[in-house]
Amino acid sequence: MKIKAFAPGKVILFGEHSVVHKKPAIAVAINRGVEVEVTSRDDDIVRIDVPLVNYSESSELTDKKLFFELDSQNKMITDYIYEVINLFEFDNGFNLTVDIKMYLGAGLGSSAAVTVSCIKALSLLAGIKLNKDQIARQARDIEIKIQGAASPIDTSMSTYGGIIYIDEKSQLNRIDFDMDLPLIVSNCEISGNTGKLVESVRQKYVKYPEIVGNIFNAMQLIARNAKEALETGNSELIGELMNLNQGLLDSIGVNTVELSDMVYLSRKYGAKGSKLTGSGGGGCIIAYCPENIDYIYDHLSQKYATFKCEQSDEGVNATIIEK
Amino acid sequence: MKIKAFAPGKVILFGEHSVVHKKPAIAVAINRGVEVEVTSRDDDIVRIDVPLVNYSESSELTDKKLFFELDSQNKMITDYIYEVINLFEFDNGFNLTVDIKMYLGAGLGSSAAVTVSCIKALSLLAGIKLNKDQIARQARDIEIKIQGAASPIDTSMSTYGGIIYIDEKSQLNRIDFDMDLPLIVSNCEISGNTGKLVESVRQKYVKYPEIVGNIFNAMQLIARNAKEALETGNSELIGELMNLNQGLLDSIGVNTVELSDMVYLSRKYGAKGSKLTGSGGGGCIIAYCPENIDYIYDHLSQKYATFKCEQSDEGVNATIIEK
Repeated sequence: MKIKAFAPGKVILFGEHSVVHKKPAIAVAINRGVEVEVTSRDDDIVRIDVPLVNYSESSELTDKKLFFELDSQNKMITDYIYEVINLFEFDNGFNLTVDIKMYLGAGLGSSAAVTVSCIKALSLLAGIKLNKDQIARQARDIEIKIQGAASPIDTSMSTYGGIIYIDEKSQLNRIDFDMDLPLIVSNCEISGNTGKLVESVRQKYVKYPEIVGNIFNAMQLIARNAKEALETGNSELIGELMNLNQGLLDSIGVNTVELSDMVYLSRKYGAKGSKLTGSGGGGCIIAYCPENIDYIYDHLSQKYATFKCEQSDEGVNATIIEK
Repeated sequence: MKIKAFAPGKVILFGEHSVVHKKPAIAVAINRGVEVEVTSRDDDIVRIDVPLVNYSESSELTDKKLFFELDSQNKMITDYIYEVINLFEFDNGFNLTVDIKMYLGAGLGSSAAVTVSCIKALSLLAGIKLNKDQIARQARDIEIKIQGAASPIDTSMSTYGGIIYIDEKSQLNRIDFDMDLPLIVSNCEISGNTGKLVESVRQKYVKYPEIVGNIFNAMQLIARNAKEALETGNSELIGELMNLNQGLLDSIGVNTVELSDMVYLSRKYGAKGSKLTGSGGGGCIIAYCPENIDYIYDHLSQKYATFKCEQSDEGVNATIIEK
């Protein structure tokens, strides 16, 4: 049996950090993510390949102690795969290739995409049919087990795809929209520490409750207006709101010189809007490029790791290539 | 007779742009500005030298048609000098050297400092003793005549010196403070168009009244907190408030990639806070450096035109070198 599965990564389009303080945010599943291929074997050997992290390992299925020490980033990724393998019972061994076609540890939900794509592929191999709600729940349980705590956003985006509006009550609502969302993602290849950044913003809020309160209110209004702009297909508005959001993220201290450089470069070459995405302090920016995306991509990719993408409407999906 | 006069330039420490929308701002007179030397002659020749703008001209005192075409920036400066000369009657000719020891057209109030220093020196040469209120009024009248409209901030700072809190009713209030304010000013040597930038912010406010309203409210609170921080000598707070203000200026679209680079460079090397100053779109940043100012200066000045300064408490002043 041979199965291919794909789960999308995600970007935060609006509202990172303010979402921690009960303001709305908008997340977009992107058509870059993690591709998994699993092929059953006649013996009971399990062989795992993760090309991007240069990880390759094989072991007996029975002991399932597959993983050894790696550096922390890579160890994290293999930990997720290990947890997924332990969800199911297998009659035979298998070869599993986990191809991470995005950036790791850059706020794009790579661990969720690994987990969700592996659940999809390995559940089918084990002969179990899970619906999306079950996949999302199991993926989130694994994230919580490994990370200690996890927002449901990443695993939901990887599972369901689409564009999600996280409202003031932390409920996820799918946004109905009928437009393309061509994006460029550029990565400064410096990792921000999400926990520390969230804590530093919290401390700023405690120290300057009124000032940061007004900034969060502005972020809230930006996310609300952006929801409408997406629903009505107003690309001008989406870009302007991204730029407004970017400055507010700078003001609360999560921007960096590299992020700012990428943001301004993309605008210079024609992006309608651009901002950091995720917790900042490093990581990625997104540039919204309904026009001239190739031209903007060419310039950004000369200086920074960059890819083009669009929204992924479908979420996780799999194809059985050989019965 | 030989007279030397000095008038300080200024930086906006907090509240540029929001001040246009009736929010408070804080301006600081700096000990960099314009030095004027005037020496009476036995004949009726008037000779003007403006070294920085490479302007040198002499003419008969009687016709007073001293100035010819120059490029617009330099013509502006010489226009101010011409207006000042026309305020007074002189018995003899004189040599006037106007040494602009700061950046021109970079939001530092150079035209006000030229006007105020020339009024001070030339009034003394003409045997007229003007008090500061009279100097400030005459300087502002000249700014209005040449520019069409002018805020009283620049001419007031050049005349009175000190740190001024411009309140919600546009009243200027001197802030009593008892601390040093060591600043670095770096210039990206690209000129922003103040009129266009003010108009673009106004349009953004019209289009997004609630979002920009919250941003202006945050700027208002920042300026109010900063007034207290200056009065109580809380240098930590001053720096943090500058950084908050900088992001908000970015969000309303008046930051640039060069300004952002200078802002982050200064913070990297130890500035307690940094932000663009003035209308943005180019021009200067200020970095507040109560510690290691020389170290920060060395790094910034490798890449950008940079000077160190402090607040100027005194305002315009003159010395009669020869009776």
